[in-house]
Amino acid sequence: MSDVFPRRREALRAQLRDRGLDAVLVVDLLNIRYLTGFTGSNAALVVHAADAPGSEKNTVFCTDGRYLTQSSEQVPDLERIIDRNSAVALAARVAKDPGQFRRTGYESQHVTVEALDGLAEAAAGIELVRAPGMVETLRIVKDDIEIEALRMACAAADRALADLLEHGGLRPGRSEKEVARDLENRMLENGAADKSFETIVAAGVHSAIPHHRPTEAVLQAGDFVKLDFGALVDGYHSDMTRTLVLGNPADWQREIYELVAASQAAGRAALMPGADVKDIDAASRDVIERAGHGENFLHGLGHGVGLRIHEAPSLAKTGEGTLSAGMAVTVEPGVYLAGRGGVRIEDTLVVREAGPELLTLTTKQLMVV
Amino acid sequence: MSDVFPRRREALRAQLRDRGLDAVLVVDLLNIRYLTGFTGSNAALVVHAADAPGSEKNTVFCTDGRYLTQSSEQVPDLERIIDRNSAVALAARVAKDPGQFRRTGYESQHVTVEALDGLAEAAAGIELVRAPGMVETLRIVKDDIEIEALRMACAAADRALADLLEHGGLRPGRSEKEVARDLENRMLENGAADKSFETIVAAGVHSAIPHHRPTEAVLQAGDFVKLDFGALVDGYHSDMTRTLVLGNPADWQREIYELVAASQAAGRAALMPGADVKDIDAASRDVIERAGHGENFLHGLGHGVGLRIHEAPSLAKTGEGTLSAGMAVTVEPGVYLAGRGGVRIEDTLVVREAGPELLTLTTKQLMVV
Repeated sequence: MSDVFPRRREALRAQLRDRGLDAVLVVDLLNIRYLTGFTGSNAALVVHAADAPGSEKNTVFCTDGRYLTQSSEQVPDLERIIDRNSAVALAARVAKDPGQFRRTGYESQHVTVEALDGLAEAAAGIELVRAPGMVETLRIVKDDIEIEALRMACAAADRALADLLEHGGLRPGRSEKEVARDLENRMLENGAADKSFETIVAAGVHSAIPHHRPTEAVLQAGDFVKLDFGALVDGYHSDMTRTLVLGNPADWQREIYELVAASQAAGRAALMPGADVKDIDAASRDVIERAGHGENFLHGLGHGVGLRIHEAPSLAKTGEGTLSAGMAVTVEPGVYLAGRGGVRIEDTLVVREAGPELLTLTTKQLMVV
Repeated sequence: MSDVFPRRREALRAQLRDRGLDAVLVVDLLNIRYLTGFTGSNAALVVHAADAPGSEKNTVFCTDGRYLTQSSEQVPDLERIIDRNSAVALAARVAKDPGQFRRTGYESQHVTVEALDGLAEAAAGIELVRAPGMVETLRIVKDDIEIEALRMACAAADRALADLLEHGGLRPGRSEKEVARDLENRMLENGAADKSFETIVAAGVHSAIPHHRPTEAVLQAGDFVKLDFGALVDGYHSDMTRTLVLGNPADWQREIYELVAASQAAGRAALMPGADVKDIDAASRDVIERAGHGENFLHGLGHGVGLRIHEAPSLAKTGEGTLSAGMAVTVEPGVYLAGRGGVRIEDTLVVREAGPELLTLTTKQLMVV
């Protein structure tokens, strides 16, 4: 694992050379984590185009005094500056060596209008060039280390749901909030550092609300219960939705469940390298539209997952681009019948040449509890 | 409570008139929550200077389709636009009425360099003016609704610690992680929606690390155990640190505990309207410096709390400004002896004319468990 961060920085350097930049100032903490492994809450990083793994003389990291020890452990291989104003300090560092840093890019999609003033002042004599989205572009395709973290995060969620069901945690009389907390604790017991987003537990008519927040409402026999939840492992986010029925499903419940399951299977099957993201959405959505429920599928089909719970690519009508092997995405169609109930089924998967690799392994058969 | 948001918007309008702005485009979600009560994850807001409570014709809110119902409940009193690109949509809305919005401010401390392009394009014909920090200036002094939320958040944390101790949750043999999870669950049981930040449980030598993350390390007899934790209630963050001893304290433990307690009391006593924030820090720090431990007090004295866990004012050597009644701040000196152990004692308080109101009520007597 020790060469993963130098390798990622090397991939960034190829982009720098393509853009004719001497270096880039990285200020987004997730991008810095991706490039260095640093997990603290204040940092900046300059990556120089002419450096190479093992010889990164002009690639410099900055954080504040709280992270003196942590940064020496997590970023032992780079020059470190300790300064509270990390981005400004690196801008000043760069300005001291204008020969090496003549054209320096910065993350203009993260630097605010006000913050740019401070950078420009500190980097007087350097040409600061907008360079949006460079690290994000790298992050779309996951490497093996990242996929392993996603796999562990998905496994923690799978195990948590299995434990919840095994211990009778999903039963009439419990509130949505109780179930949510129980599920979250079981993720922590199964290796999660945290939940990856606010857990959704939506029972009965609440299941028709796509993003319902758990309430004191009590689960009742006959309810759909929609669980949308995930685990955080090594900074990576899992995302899974399952919809279960408490007791015997009614015909309408079985019908929309089967419809969403078929739609979700069609979406998964379309996940191939080279496929247009719009077509993935369409493959899944068509199944629901043909059944006359198009207007009850209110959202996009899926999204990338990684260091963020929502990141590129967007699998939606409005999405752009094509899939590549190594992208990690969700596939999560839903049908929501206002006032009655709704179903969403969601997996996290990795796009592969041989067909998608499923990371969330809980069954998608209709589970009756 | 129904008039709280119109009242806050009215306070913002006074600033708009002072700056000669027709309106301001607010994009920060916490600022929008402060001004409208909206709690979703995508929104923008334009507040017009010439509007008045009950007649806010040119004050417009925007969010996306996921929040159609939620926004109609939370923001019933404003014109609502439904659009995914909320800030851009409002910029376009403003440009349709250049007579009313000739000079429109925007939150330049939140808008990125890239995002400004999109706003400027949509708002063609309007003068977009930098207007950083306007809502944050209002947020420094808390109103009664906010203080009540902080009070409830602090109470949830107080009760959680009491429950933990009462149930023997702090004992040799438990790991730091187990204690952290236990404490967090007890906050949830006592009304917290979430923890307000990553809980710190630092035992033995770990207590000498100011911001230690809980590990599998096991609590042992004779250890200092430093607990720094908080609850989130209605979006407001509590923050409290207590340091306890497992078993009878050694003389050195009692000595630095008493020192930090005296320092913390001095800091609290200095919390008066009109006081310079540097002087509050100094009042507390002097006690520790006079005892020869100045170099072991590694951080600032405290910070504001509210919709963020860390916000203005900063009570530190490098802080600027003076206190006003209604500010909510922490006072949290510490002494850290590397390789031995450390003590921090922290309260959340409200600055009042008659002297600070303590919100975190757990005793600061040395607790031996």
